[in-house]
Parts: sequence; C-alpha cells; structure tokens
Amino acid sequence: MDSRELLVETMSDLLWERGYADTSPRDIRERSGVGQGSMYHHFPSKRDLALAALERNVAALLPAVSDLDGRGDPLARIEAYLTRPRDALKGCKVGRMTQDPQVREDPVLLAPVARAFAQAHVSWVRVLREAIAAGKLRDDLAPERLAHTLMAVLQGGYVLAIAQQDSAPFEDACAGAVDLLRAAATSTSNLKNDRRK
Amino acid sequence: MDSRELLVETMSDLLWERGYADTSPRDIRERSGVGQGSMYHHFPSKRDLALAALERNVAALLPAVSDLDGRGDPLARIEAYLTRPRDALKGCKVGRMTQDPQVREDPVLLAPVARAFAQAHVSWVRVLREAIAAGKLRDDLAPERLAHTLMAVLQGGYVLAIAQQDSAPFEDACAGAVDLLRAAATSTSNLKNDRRK
Repeated sequence: MDSRELLVETMSDLLWERGYADTSPRDIRERSGVGQGSMYHHFPSKRDLALAALERNVAALLPAVSDLDGRGDPLARIEAYLTRPRDALKGCKVGRMTQDPQVREDPVLLAPVARAFAQAHVSWVRVLREAIAAGKLRDDLAPERLAHTLMAVLQGGYVLAIAQQDSAPFEDACAGAVDLLRAAATSTSNLKNDRRK
Repeated sequence: MDSRELLVETMSDLLWERGYADTSPRDIRERSGVGQGSMYHHFPSKRDLALAALERNVAALLPAVSDLDGRGDPLARIEAYLTRPRDALKGCKVGRMTQDPQVREDPVLLAPVARAFAQAHVSWVRVLREAIAAGKLRDDLAPERLAHTLMAVLQGGYVLAIAQQDSAPFEDACAGAVDLLRAAATSTSNLKNDRRK
C-alpha cells in the first residue's frame, strides 16, 4: 500500500475511533508509520487528510445502504436492513462526525456527511414508496418523512448503545421500528395472521 | 454567582458546544473569567469539572422528560413530547457526550449519561404502557422496545439535522414517528375516521 493510501486508511480508522478534534497529526504518523515529510507532501493539513478519509468512509457506507434497493418484497428489505448485525458500540462512521465540534462547524468537512445522508434518504424513500405501491404499507404514510424516522432510529440507536455500553438498546430501537412498520401495514387481518404464525 | 458555580455553568455550555476532548482548561478560564488558582482549588482536573457539568446537564434534561408522566391522554403526551420545539442544530446536551472519544472511553464520565437515558427510558415505558392500557396503542407492541425506538428517533434526528445543517430532518423524523404511532393505534376503523376529519 502506498503512503498516501496508508494515511487515508489510518485517518479513516482514527476518525471512527477518536473523531477529528481528538486526532493529532502525531497520532496519524505513529499509527500509519508514515513520516512527517511524506504526510505533508500528500496532505498539507490534517483537514485535507480528514476530507479524503471522510470521502472514503462515505464511499464505504453507501454500498450497505444500496441493499435497500434491489428486488423482492420491499418491506422485507427494510426489515432486513434495520435488523442486520451492526457493531452498535462503535457507532456509525459517518453519523458520528456530526458530533465532532470541528467537523460540524466546517462546511467543507460536513459536506460529505450531508451528501451521504442525502443519498441514504433517496434509497429509503424509494423502498418505502415501493412498499406503499405494493400494498405493504398504508398509503397515508409519507415516505420522505418516514425515511428520516428510520434513518434516525439507526443513528439514535447508536447513541443509546454507547451511553449504556450495551448493544441491546440499539437492537431494541430497530426491532421496535420493525414492530411499528408491521403495525402500519395495510391490513389488520393480515397482521393478525402473521403474528399467529 | 460564586466561582465554583460559574465554572460548572461554563463547562456545561462548553460541553454542549464543543464537547469534552476539544475544550481546554484555558477555554474554561477565558470563558468563565475564573483564575487558574481558583479553578484548581474547586476542580483538581478538567475531568472533575466535566463530571460536575455533566451531572448538571443531566439534571437539566430530566424535568423535560418528566412531561411524559402527568395526566391526560397518554398518546397525546407522547405526541406532544415528540413534536415540542427543540433546537435541533444544537443537539442533545447529554446524548452528544456519547460521541466524545474521551467520554465514551471513561466509565466515570459516561455514568451520568447512562443514568439519564435509563431514567428517560423508565418514563417512556410508563407512558407507553398507559397508552396500551387505555386502548390507545395495540397491545402486541412491546413498550420497553418501543421506548428505545422513540428515544432513538430524537437522538438520531439531531444527527440528521446537524449533518444537513437544517432542522427539517429532525422534525420529519419526529413527525414520521407520530404517523407510525397513529397507524399502530388499536382500531383501524378509528384511524380511518380520524384521517377523514
């Protein structure tokens, strides 16, 4: 791996583990083993390196979100996405950047984060519309709004899990969202049948 | 205001604005106007001061959560709590601490955060149980789980709002949760009537 790539990968890990404000150029050099001269050759500032690492974290997140697209029962895809195993105590690589004081005040660093959430929102709206069109969700639900609710359940679930140092609140939050979606399905009688299985 | 109180109030504000890792003893002295000697007299370390400030932030949050208790229609109380005006771009004083690298790795600093969420969960479970007992929510919903879902909607809503630098995703997330709760009410026919009004 070349030193530029090594720096970006190291910064990507450090952003997830420690955030931006709390990561020093020295931390990056020590972890990556890349020297100061080479580091400043590739990235004149910590901010330049952070931007490249953030772009990388966003790029890593989006394929996972794209699982919401695809084929088959849209409600099943939503449920699978909400309940897939995640490392709740590590949180979201992208979402946690919003709590970093130096990121949230820097429009350039915040831009890839905003873009990632906007793209995730597009995928969520699409699958929710499909579910409504397929008669799997009530047609009086607003997909744009509900997309933000379900994205918030995931992001907030991480907050609860980290606070309790226990993944259970995260899993609960997602399972509760699935319960509500099932309850918001079109037909009460179908739901009752499902639950009796 | 005495210098101890002034230090705690200043640290409480700085924790909300900048977090723990990114707040230096110098920032605290400059903002509070309290001298170094007096600061170290009251608080031997930044961590001691942060703990006092966190306890204060938790104490400030809990009266708001207690609005979930009280009288009247429990589902109306839940809806009022989810849709009350909040400064979405500032986020939650307590929740954001979970993303602070030096807080999340320090069990002593994390303890008041965990306690605050545990107390909020108790209030949420109580009002959800009331809503189920009053026939306002379907009795096949699990209140313990759903409590975490709704807490996550609020916490995650802040993340989305900060990412977009726009309070709309926060308000959407909460409004979408209210939509789902209404859809998860006991009687389909009642819901249909409500929507026709």
